Amino acid sequence: MDDLASKVLTGDARSIGRLITLVENNSPDAVKEMKKLHKHTGNAHVIGVTGVMGSGKSTLILELTLAYRKEGKKIGIIAIDPTSPFTGGALLGDRIRMMELSTDSGVFIRSMGTRGMIGGLTSAIYDVVEIFDAAGMDIIFIETVGVGQDEVDIVKIADTTLVVLIPGLGDSIQTIKAGLMEIADVYVINKADKPGVEQTVAELEAMLDLASHINWRIPIVPTSAKAKKGISLLIQKITEHQEFSKKGQTFETRRRQRYEAELIEIIRKRLMSFIFDENKLKGKVDCCIDQICKKELDPYSAADEILGTMLKK
Amino acid sequence: MDDLASKVLTGDARSIGRLITLVENNSPDAVKEMKKLHKHTGNAHVIGVTGVMGSGKSTLILELTLAYRKEGKKIGIIAIDPTSPFTGGALLGDRIRMMELSTDSGVFIRSMGTRGMIGGLTSAIYDVVEIFDAAGMDIIFIETVGVGQDEVDIVKIADTTLVVLIPGLGDSIQTIKAGLMEIADVYVINKADKPGVEQTVAELEAMLDLASHINWRIPIVPTSAKAKKGISLLIQKITEHQEFSKKGQTFETRRRQRYEAELIEIIRKRLMSFIFDENKLKGKVDCCIDQICKKELDPYSAADEILGTMLKK
Repeated sequence: MDDLASKVLTGDARSIGRLITLVENNSPDAVKEMKKLHKHTGNAHVIGVTGVMGSGKSTLILELTLAYRKEGKKIGIIAIDPTSPFTGGALLGDRIRMMELSTDSGVFIRSMGTRGMIGGLTSAIYDVVEIFDAAGMDIIFIETVGVGQDEVDIVKIADTTLVVLIPGLGDSIQTIKAGLMEIADVYVINKADKPGVEQTVAELEAMLDLASHINWRIPIVPTSAKAKKGISLLIQKITEHQEFSKKGQTFETRRRQRYEAELIEIIRKRLMSFIFDENKLKGKVDCCIDQICKKELDPYSAADEILGTMLKK
Repeated sequence: MDDLASKVLTGDARSIGRLITLVENNSPDAVKEMKKLHKHTGNAHVIGVTGVMGSGKSTLILELTLAYRKEGKKIGIIAIDPTSPFTGGALLGDRIRMMELSTDSGVFIRSMGTRGMIGGLTSAIYDVVEIFDAAGMDIIFIETVGVGQDEVDIVKIADTTLVVLIPGLGDSIQTIKAGLMEIADVYVINKADKPGVEQTVAELEAMLDLASHINWRIPIVPTSAKAKKGISLLIQKITEHQEFSKKGQTFETRRRQRYEAELIEIIRKRLMSFIFDENKLKGKVDCCIDQICKKELDPYSAADEILGTMLKK
């Protein structure tokens, strides 16, 4: 244990896995090691991949990974599956395909649930990104499934966000686009061998015509991940976005946002464990909840009391 | 403004709307009024309605509301739409149908986004439940769309949770059931006029046979909300669950959970505004983030510094 961080910096797979487990278990040892890693981070390009269920995100990430591997790049994949917060589970077929990568020592895959007391992306994700980055991964993919808050949160972490759609979604596209619209750096129309691609592209283009652009017109890339089509064009667009970001303020602004979100998350987690610590506030909190249940105290006044106990001044 | 709470207690629609707006805007006046309401709450039965997109949840809530209205019950509906965190939007057809209710003074509808700095259900939802409850609503529906953390969070608020499925989802059911499995008190198979109902029921029954039951076997109710079929059976099952909860510990345990979640949320919100308050910690936080960006400081040590500044001891 005495220097897990140094081993992570060499890219040692077992140490990476061990530190992630420590982080997920909120071990105090994890914090000690994490503190050593930060100054070695900042080189990985973080790519968020989001979109509707069944759009083939995993297969797309698989193909992108295989292509990046040919360039010798090291890849980290973080799969977040909010569809199974309790048990963790994905379609077996997807898992098997992802496992093809598991014998490649230049690829590291970690799947995480969205557990945690208060919603959003699991807080450990920031740590896993830092660990992968420090361990020398060149590209880190973060895959989120479904629509909702997770997709908004991913923007705070990713340098480039891919929104994956499929042709002919019709009404569904109407429903999701409001939320996904604003977070995309690149649109991917996957399963582009299916009918309706031209129409979906045309609809998106029309939508983009109406939106404002700050020098970056969001490209629309049709792919067929299963047939390995469109992957090199997609990589080209990702690279272009990366170059665009670094030329202007986008990259710096987003990194700042990520660190801000990470810092807030760490503070939130610490404060919550402070509140629920048996030796500190837990007794007071439990007593307040009892009183709230009996209507002797209201939640806002209870919060006043608890905060008064913990905060300076 | 001097006594908005009293007006809310009389069920005055304008005052209810005004207080909700104050709450959503994090107005300090809202807190003052909210404190007065809590002791008048606890009578409303909160029904969470969740499930896949396109399962007809809104129509189901509409029909349940019409049925409850015939019994003279007052209804509050809170629609949360995580598919549009930025702009707010739903399918027009659904909205028009919901608007049928808007001329009924015994029905109050509020739609909310999942905004908020850190994911999960929008924090104002606890307040809206308290406001509706204090204003004399007998039943409060909370509708969430999609799958993910929101569905887990809804359990912390609802007395009874309906999970709405549709026949013949096949693979999708596999994907979602892990997450939705554990939160259902009643399964609804809506659109039961479509083929595949028997199979979906059989699959769910088989799943339930494997699960453990603490005296409550989750009922499966096929409905066709559009054709107004199955609504009275569903209401019967909701009532049975309500009676079951109140006979045992379930009801008390859940209410306690709700108040705990609410208290934590209020504390979290207060702490975050403390951290971002110009006159308090904002300068320090910004400075820390600068140092994190420059790798002069790591996020964990920054959190130590900030917490040291704000916490007693």
